[in-house]
Amino acid sequence: MSSDEQAIRNAVAAWMNASADGDLPRVLELIDDDVVFLGPGRPPMRKDQFAAASKGMEGKVRVEGASDIQDLQVSGDWAYVWTQLTIAMHPTDGSAPTHRSGPGLSVWRKKADGRWVIFRDANMVTTDTKK
Amino acid sequence: MSSDEQAIRNAVAAWMNASADGDLPRVLELIDDDVVFLGPGRPPMRKDQFAAASKGMEGKVRVEGASDIQDLQVSGDWAYVWTQLTIAMHPTDGSAPTHRSGPGLSVWRKKADGRWVIFRDANMVTTDTKK
Repeated sequence: MSSDEQAIRNAVAAWMNASADGDLPRVLELIDDDVVFLGPGRPPMRKDQFAAASKGMEGKVRVEGASDIQDLQVSGDWAYVWTQLTIAMHPTDGSAPTHRSGPGLSVWRKKADGRWVIFRDANMVTTDTKK
Repeated sequence: MSSDEQAIRNAVAAWMNASADGDLPRVLELIDDDVVFLGPGRPPMRKDQFAAASKGMEGKVRVEGASDIQDLQVSGDWAYVWTQLTIAMHPTDGSAPTHRSGPGLSVWRKKADGRWVIFRDANMVTTDTKK
């Protein structure tokens, strides 16, 4: 495995850990200033909107997630990652958790300082329906 | 604009035109054999499943679509494209068309013969709700 691929895998893991810890500053370090978050049924979201939405959830929900990388390809200072995401959101008021899952496709870029950050993100996670 | 960027823009346009024409062989030429189509609420779809689904719609619906490229980045033999898609599906039985829109994020790769083909596709198009 190339060092770039390893660095991106570490960044994906760091993202999941920082989200679980509610460590927003650490999450924001993994995001390019010019990021665009895409999803179905909503307009594209920029970094400041992502930060505001995350702040709004602080203390209200504990996130437990796993990102299972299906495919990752590096080309120069660019890379894409296809993941299968599984996320449980536990409200801190003790109400029932919601379970969400689905694929993600993200584009990462290597900054001048060598860090890989997320640049484009397609989030196709949906709420799991009870069987 | 680089010749690779122009080639990818032409391929995106060719995809929309071939879809509108119901020209499945031409559409399939623009798709890598190892493609994965991703979307919310459904399992990943491979090329043979895409072809079967497209064949199933042949003669039943006329597709009218536009793909408005928001962002495109080439790095070596790899590229990504962020598009805003607007699609109208006109059933050939004359019943009311459905309108769909939303973002797409796709990864393209350049084959050994120089052709760019779609390799990973995140489709976040949803049915427009009436205002």
